Amino acid sequence: MSSKKEMRKLTSIPSPEDLRLAHQAIQKYIHNTPILRSQSIDDMLGVEIHFKCENFQKIGAFKMRGASCAIASLTDEERSAGVATHSSGNHAQAVALAARFNQINAHIVMPRDAPQIKRKAVAGYGAHIYDSEPNIESRHSRTQEVLTETGATFVHPFDNYNIIAGQATAALEMLSDLPNLDMILAPVGGGGLMSGTSLACHYHEQDTISVGCEPKMVDDAYRSYQSGQIESNENINTIADGLRTNLGPKTLEIIRKHVAKFVLVDEHTIIDAMRLIWERMKIIVEPSGAVPLAAVMTEPDFFRGKSIGIIISGGNVDLEKLPFSLNSSQ
Amino acid sequence: MSSKKEMRKLTSIPSPEDLRLAHQAIQKYIHNTPILRSQSIDDMLGVEIHFKCENFQKIGAFKMRGASCAIASLTDEERSAGVATHSSGNHAQAVALAARFNQINAHIVMPRDAPQIKRKAVAGYGAHIYDSEPNIESRHSRTQEVLTETGATFVHPFDNYNIIAGQATAALEMLSDLPNLDMILAPVGGGGLMSGTSLACHYHEQDTISVGCEPKMVDDAYRSYQSGQIESNENINTIADGLRTNLGPKTLEIIRKHVAKFVLVDEHTIIDAMRLIWERMKIIVEPSGAVPLAAVMTEPDFFRGKSIGIIISGGNVDLEKLPFSLNSSQ
Repeated sequence: MSSKKEMRKLTSIPSPEDLRLAHQAIQKYIHNTPILRSQSIDDMLGVEIHFKCENFQKIGAFKMRGASCAIASLTDEERSAGVATHSSGNHAQAVALAARFNQINAHIVMPRDAPQIKRKAVAGYGAHIYDSEPNIESRHSRTQEVLTETGATFVHPFDNYNIIAGQATAALEMLSDLPNLDMILAPVGGGGLMSGTSLACHYHEQDTISVGCEPKMVDDAYRSYQSGQIESNENINTIADGLRTNLGPKTLEIIRKHVAKFVLVDEHTIIDAMRLIWERMKIIVEPSGAVPLAAVMTEPDFFRGKSIGIIISGGNVDLEKLPFSLNSSQ
Repeated sequence: MSSKKEMRKLTSIPSPEDLRLAHQAIQKYIHNTPILRSQSIDDMLGVEIHFKCENFQKIGAFKMRGASCAIASLTDEERSAGVATHSSGNHAQAVALAARFNQINAHIVMPRDAPQIKRKAVAGYGAHIYDSEPNIESRHSRTQEVLTETGATFVHPFDNYNIIAGQATAALEMLSDLPNLDMILAPVGGGGLMSGTSLACHYHEQDTISVGCEPKMVDDAYRSYQSGQIESNENINTIADGLRTNLGPKTLEIIRKHVAKFVLVDEHTIIDAMRLIWERMKIIVEPSGAVPLAAVMTEPDFFRGKSIGIIISGGNVDLEKLPFSLNSSQ
């Protein structure tokens, strides 16, 4: 509720000290989420998995960390004009709630076809909603109009060093509780969580690597990691709808420097992994959040015997459109 | 893994000391499950609810407590002949796993139409499965045959003082963590959990009452509570399939003595409550486990402002047959 800046605006790749300060700055706005285990999943795969449950995070996803960190870096003048972003998903809710905690205005551009439940959540946090057509050009032009009208500060969903530092705090908390992890796995969409995770692992005093996990159907981040260019996808029809985005220049640079390995997973393995978590752990994870477990199932020889941290990115699913059918497990 | 009796066989209503010994005897076979809260559910209902998450219990339900406590009271001779029961659900899995932990045989009579996933789970724990026809007469006669053939000890799913003492330990753990609860709510099926919960509340040094929560469609326990006779239902087609059973003489006596109040709930309120828990808390609860929250939603004036413990009985649901549809919330 303080009106003064709690953290500096980061203009280069966050340092170890930046990650620590980010964690300090956002602590009162986020949960230090629990880390769960499942004996039966461990036995089945011959691994030791520690699940960092960002599905239990405020707004139901890790995005609350980054949004809180971005807002913590605003000057008093910027605060008075508020923040703006475009998103149909978790980032919209995160910016809206973080803005509310900070008593500043949030202006959110949402496509007309965004699920009603998400619009209601964003409106419930007191944000101003602006409609766009359901295509990226309209989202961008509408956002530009809103920025001009309001003078608000744009909060990019991932290609922003404060967002990256905020997302890094999930891995930071894991490594603080479990310093001897062999590796941390995270799903890769725009790369905010992945780049933050890879920095936290890189700065950790022990030898913990980070592994990027991506659906084969939208393997743009893997291809970007190889080529050094921001690649895109022809077909983005993956069930892991949080991972359809491409990388940005900042996340690409960090991921290329610090991610040790990528694993690409099939759609049916994502569903099998999601089902395994739901059935064995009795917790709700979104398809994107099941992608790292799908990675372990996809390359069992690489992971066998390892102590693995998995960041479950979130738990926001549409209960009316679940992917479980009699034949999903094959 | 000890082969000697860990607890006496209870032949009358468990005393405070019996509940403590039961908890001690089963501690190594069960989880002390976490207690979760949801700010948004509290705000919505104007209450303070603490959810005891037996969905995270071994086998996914509180039944593990009672089965472990019943097996802990066997003599060496009884152990050598093993245990038997009939069940198509959580009790079958609980007896099978508790028997496995104790390295004794379990003989489980299951109706032919029991879900394949439950048969597999029971078989996976190493129990012997016997088929019966899908009616209560066949289940009973098949069980009698198995008892005669094997000499095993029958473990009743609820009308057994050791089972009741075991189920009481969920409330015991809650009251130990949260001694100032105004009340604890539990769902009522055969009454094992409810009678145990009511004893734990009755023996607690503070003034904590217990409230029975039952679907209106199978309100036999409420009617039994009023009449003093074991009542039954014409129609048992409730979504809360764990609560279709009638009380037994032992559970009826305890419930009449110690339960302060019953709340009956509609089917659509059960689904709304279940959906609220899934969406807000990101945890999987079975319909029976949502019945106590449905009770709070049904009588808001009674519960407003109270500090409430709710026992979430379990999380074993068939993911292919979920009750969420566009019109479930009305």
